[in-house]
Amino acid sequence: MKEYYLGLDLGGTKILAGLADAQGNIITRSRKETEAELGEDKIIENMIETIEEVLNKAGVSKEQVRTLGIGSPGPLDAKKGIIIENSNLPWKNVQLVKKMETALGINTLLKNDANAAALGEKWFGAGKKVDNMVYLTISTGIGGGAIINKELFSGVNDNACEIGHTVIDPDGPLCGCGNHGCLESFSSGTSIGKRAREAAAAGKSKKMLDLADNIIEDIDAVICAQAAYQGDQIAIDIFEKAGYYLGIGLGNVVNIFNTEMIILGGGVMKASDLFLDQALKTMKDIALPGPLEIVTVKEAELGSDIGLMGAIAVAMEDRLIKNE
Amino acid sequence: MKEYYLGLDLGGTKILAGLADAQGNIITRSRKETEAELGEDKIIENMIETIEEVLNKAGVSKEQVRTLGIGSPGPLDAKKGIIIENSNLPWKNVQLVKKMETALGINTLLKNDANAAALGEKWFGAGKKVDNMVYLTISTGIGGGAIINKELFSGVNDNACEIGHTVIDPDGPLCGCGNHGCLESFSSGTSIGKRAREAAAAGKSKKMLDLADNIIEDIDAVICAQAAYQGDQIAIDIFEKAGYYLGIGLGNVVNIFNTEMIILGGGVMKASDLFLDQALKTMKDIALPGPLEIVTVKEAELGSDIGLMGAIAVAMEDRLIKNE
Repeated sequence: MKEYYLGLDLGGTKILAGLADAQGNIITRSRKETEAELGEDKIIENMIETIEEVLNKAGVSKEQVRTLGIGSPGPLDAKKGIIIENSNLPWKNVQLVKKMETALGINTLLKNDANAAALGEKWFGAGKKVDNMVYLTISTGIGGGAIINKELFSGVNDNACEIGHTVIDPDGPLCGCGNHGCLESFSSGTSIGKRAREAAAAGKSKKMLDLADNIIEDIDAVICAQAAYQGDQIAIDIFEKAGYYLGIGLGNVVNIFNTEMIILGGGVMKASDLFLDQALKTMKDIALPGPLEIVTVKEAELGSDIGLMGAIAVAMEDRLIKNE
Repeated sequence: MKEYYLGLDLGGTKILAGLADAQGNIITRSRKETEAELGEDKIIENMIETIEEVLNKAGVSKEQVRTLGIGSPGPLDAKKGIIIENSNLPWKNVQLVKKMETALGINTLLKNDANAAALGEKWFGAGKKVDNMVYLTISTGIGGGAIINKELFSGVNDNACEIGHTVIDPDGPLCGCGNHGCLESFSSGTSIGKRAREAAAAGKSKKMLDLADNIIEDIDAVICAQAAYQGDQIAIDIFEKAGYYLGIGLGNVVNIFNTEMIILGGGVMKASDLFLDQALKTMKDIALPGPLEIVTVKEAELGSDIGLMGAIAVAMEDRLIKNE
């Protein structure tokens, strides 16, 4: 009997599901609104429907599926299969794995989205050839996942690699976590947008105000990037500064993980030409010669498929490690 | 035939060697001057003599020794058995493992001193009951070693866990590595001494000057601690500040490693009552709830034996992991 794997990428607004063969090639995929505002039961119903749609399209039965992998925003307890809570989804200690297994009869594994993405890039993306890598997503927030000797490093209760919440300047801006000067408070899309709005409100950038039709609240990292590409010096400086602090974070990652590869993904990387040079320069200043010598920094390769391929990698991880 | 293990703790001024039984109990030990100023060959001769002395005292033959473990300051390449260089020893790419194996005929393993100490605390000290821990030595510098799932996490070329050289405030003091604001530049014994000399030179602490017989250059972390214990507010503040930054480093370790235990060792910990409360308070502020919930901070238990017990743990690591 042919064997298949399912991946499900759960987001605040959309659910993506995909069916893969034993080589990790996606055969069919499906997409649905999360409808988070309709509550926990409705979200799970939508997840199940997305998976059934994927299976129906492919003409594959549940019995032919070996594992379902789910990538979800956290915090969550991967070992227990529980989502503890999330700012974009109305979860509170939801036994997600148990509920999915009961409804579908398919063995289910759960990981947080950054960890799933790290697994995706390791097995199907930029990290295919290395056994040790750290993935960083620079997005609304900054999340991370590390692969050590081919395996995901999860920590004792699935909270490892919160690199976005390491303090790199205690006099820095307030972070969503309540501290000052976390990496995330300098270099995430949210913080870039905040710096841009502050600059516009202080009358420093007419360009950004123009691009946002004079509505300061509409200025975000995307508009800041547009302004920078149009030569607005304030916007350029905001990205350079975000790059500088990202470089501190990367230098610290090099000195702590002594890894072969750092892979950078997430929406902010679409504007990488505005900050990556500065980040790499700072990283090289901070990193010690020994670990710097062997590390490479790459951009993520899976693009918008990273969540889905990550979820499939969650489902296939054991098999992939054994077959290598 | 009874089996034995040898440990050798190589320091800038002294060599300690010990013979342990298969349970890791030290049977005999010996000590010799390193005589680093006499060059590479003399150091190796002294190492060999210390080991032969230990074996003679115990009446144990080389054939009865399964492995010799060496803990040494780095940077070094543990896999290749080479010490790359060291600021206190006249090494330059010394094939130490090969030389020891040729001279003694005993299978030899090499680790850097902080990694060896982490293994020592894991198997014989404060970390005996946990499978995941991070050891930090707060000494002249700040070094680290992490145990993940019972095994030492060495990184790709033995440079993992350089936590002392993570930047936690880019506006901070110049560090020996050339960067500004590494953890080591705030909280090591060297940096505490430097802050103390600066304060004394600025006429802020008569107490420290008195304790150093008015010779500013003689003021170090030990004198600063004496002054603090005698109520000198400037000295107290210097330790509190060192504790605050150490707390940032600890919080970052919690958020990155999601470990069960952090063990703190090194000479500066003798004055832990001057800075540990502040460090733990700051750590708790910075750590995320998930990883904070499961972590414990402990003081190292092996005291001045940590280097020797660490070297013995290096020799015994494989066996200890298997027997657990």
